[in-house]
Amino acid sequence: MNALAKEGEFGLIERIRARFRQPTAPDYGIGDDCALLTPRVGMQIAVSTDLMTEGVHFDRSYMPAIALGRKALAVNLSDLAAMGAIPRVFFLSFALPRAFSVDYLDGVLEGLAAMADEHDCLLAGGDTCGSQSGLTISITVLGEQKPQYMVKRSGAQAGHDIWVSGTLGDAAAGLEQLQKGAVACDQFLVSRHLDPAPRVGLGIVLAESESVSSMIDISDGLYGDVGHCMRLSGVGAAINLNSLPLSLPYRTFSRQQHDPWLAALTGGEDYELCFTAAPQHEETICNLAKTTGIPVTKIGTVTEQSGVTLYTADGSPYQPERSSYTHF
Amino acid sequence: MNALAKEGEFGLIERIRARFRQPTAPDYGIGDDCALLTPRVGMQIAVSTDLMTEGVHFDRSYMPAIALGRKALAVNLSDLAAMGAIPRVFFLSFALPRAFSVDYLDGVLEGLAAMADEHDCLLAGGDTCGSQSGLTISITVLGEQKPQYMVKRSGAQAGHDIWVSGTLGDAAAGLEQLQKGAVACDQFLVSRHLDPAPRVGLGIVLAESESVSSMIDISDGLYGDVGHCMRLSGVGAAINLNSLPLSLPYRTFSRQQHDPWLAALTGGEDYELCFTAAPQHEETICNLAKTTGIPVTKIGTVTEQSGVTLYTADGSPYQPERSSYTHF
Repeated sequence: MNALAKEGEFGLIERIRARFRQPTAPDYGIGDDCALLTPRVGMQIAVSTDLMTEGVHFDRSYMPAIALGRKALAVNLSDLAAMGAIPRVFFLSFALPRAFSVDYLDGVLEGLAAMADEHDCLLAGGDTCGSQSGLTISITVLGEQKPQYMVKRSGAQAGHDIWVSGTLGDAAAGLEQLQKGAVACDQFLVSRHLDPAPRVGLGIVLAESESVSSMIDISDGLYGDVGHCMRLSGVGAAINLNSLPLSLPYRTFSRQQHDPWLAALTGGEDYELCFTAAPQHEETICNLAKTTGIPVTKIGTVTEQSGVTLYTADGSPYQPERSSYTHF
Repeated sequence: MNALAKEGEFGLIERIRARFRQPTAPDYGIGDDCALLTPRVGMQIAVSTDLMTEGVHFDRSYMPAIALGRKALAVNLSDLAAMGAIPRVFFLSFALPRAFSVDYLDGVLEGLAAMADEHDCLLAGGDTCGSQSGLTISITVLGEQKPQYMVKRSGAQAGHDIWVSGTLGDAAAGLEQLQKGAVACDQFLVSRHLDPAPRVGLGIVLAESESVSSMIDISDGLYGDVGHCMRLSGVGAAINLNSLPLSLPYRTFSRQQHDPWLAALTGGEDYELCFTAAPQHEETICNLAKTTGIPVTKIGTVTEQSGVTLYTADGSPYQPERSSYTHF
C-alpha cells in the first residue's frame, strides 16, 4: 500500500494546507464549504483558470516536480498579468492515482508554494480526488484591480505600436530539445520551458500607467495570440520579423531549423506579454519596464487592415506553416 | 477522425459559449485572459471548486449526459448554499479524450446550462484541454453575500438544535441499485443520485434571517459532515436516529440492508443542508423552509461534549461501521 492511499483524503488536505500561507479574517481559506474573499473597495475581481493533464501538458519523465508546481501556478498568474491585475488568492485541485508518488507530490507543492510566495498569492481552497490515469491539476486564480486600469485584448487602435516583453521561442526550443532527448540541451532554453516567469509586476505597472491599449499573454505563440488581440480590436498588425527579441541560445537553436522563425512565432508557452500603446507612450513604457527589470521590444504596428502580416528584413511578407499550438 | 478532434479547440469553445448566458459589462466573460466580476458594494465573495473524474465520480454507463452536467454544477452550488451565498458566475474546465462523443458532450452542456439558468449563475470562463483517459470536469463557482450573513461551519453552540433539509440516504441507496444493476431500480432513489437539487434558496433565506449558527452541505454523509461542523465549533452532537428524515423508498430499500441506518448516515451525496440554530428560532426556520418548499427536520442537539453520538429509539447509543465516504 502506498503512502498516498495510506494518508487518506484528510491527510492529503493537511499535507497541502501545511505548505501554504493562507487568508486571514475577514477572509477565509481552507476548511469551510467555501472560501471567502473581501474585495477592496472599488476593485473589480479578475479570474482565470487552467487545467493541466499528465501526458498532454507535461511529462513527468523530464518535468521535475518543483518546476511542475511552479509552472502550474505561473500560467494562471500570467493571465492576471495580461489584465494588469494584482494576484490575491488561488484554488488548487488535484486528481491523483492511488499509487502516485508522495515525494513527487511534495515537490509539486514546494514549487507551487514558492511561486505563490513570490507573487503574494494565498491558497484559499481546492479539491482532491482520485484519478484512473495520471495526475491532473486544476488551478483557479483570483486577482483584483481598479476597473479603469484593467487592460483588455480589445483596445488596440490603428497606428499604435506593438510591444513584447522578454524573448520569444525559448520555451518551444527547450521543449523540442527535451522531447528529442538532445545530448546537450541548452539549459537556458530548457529552463524557459520548465520554469516560465509570469510578468506580473510588468503587467501591473503598465496597466496602472494607463499607457497600454490592449494586452495578452503569449501562451500559444506570438502569431496566433497577436491575431486574437487584433481580431477583438477590429484591427490588424504588421510585424517586422527582424525586430523580434530572440535570445542568443534561441538563435543558435534556430540555425538548425528548416524555418528559424517558426518556434518564435507559433511555438507557444512563452508567457511573455504582448501589448499595444500609442507612440507617445514609448518613453513611459521603456522606463516602467526598466523598473521591473524585464526588457520590452517594439515589434510592429497596429494596422487598419485586419489580419497579421509578418515582414522579413527585406520587406517581403512571410507566412508561417502553422498558426499556433493546438490542443486537439 | 471524430467530430471533437475535427472541431479543434476554438470550435469546442464556441460550442460551449453558445450554450450559456454570460456576463455583461461592466463584467466580462469568455474571450479575454481573465473574466471580470464587479462585486456589489459591501458584499464578500464566496468561492467553491470541485473536480470530477470519470471512473471515480461518475460512470458514463449509467450516468446520462444531461444528469452529469446538472450534477457537476449542483455540487458546487450546494457549497454556496451552505454559506448562504447567492450564485453569480462559474468557470468550467474540461479535459477530454480526442475520441470523446460530441453527442455526450452536448448533453453535459445542456444539463449544465439548465442548472445554471435555474440558479441564475452565468458562465464566465474556463479551459479545455486533451486527456489521455476519460473525461474530467473542473468547476469553480463564485457567489456573494453580506459578510454578516455568511454562515460558517464553526458557529454551533451547545444547546442549539440540529436540523437537516429534505431526506437522507436516498442518493446512496440509488447508487447502490445502479451499481448492482438491480432489475427494478427505484426511480426516486436513482434520481436523487443522478440529479441532486442544491438547496440554494433555502440556504440564502436561512442565512439572511440570521437564525442559524452553523451550516454545512452533506456531501460525505450526515455522520461525518456533522462531525466536521461540531469539531470546528468546539462542541459535539447528540442525534436521534428515530428523527432522521427518511423517504418511503429509502425505508423500503433499507429493509434489505444489514444496517438500515448506514446509507443515511454515511452514504454521501445527499446534498442536503445540515444546520444548527438556537431553539427560539424554530418557528422562523419552519416558516422560511415552507416558503422554499423544502422540508426541514430537527434531528438532535449540540452538546458541550465533543464527538457525535447517535441514539436509537430506546436511547441506546449506536456506532456505524464506517464514518464517511472516502476518496483514497
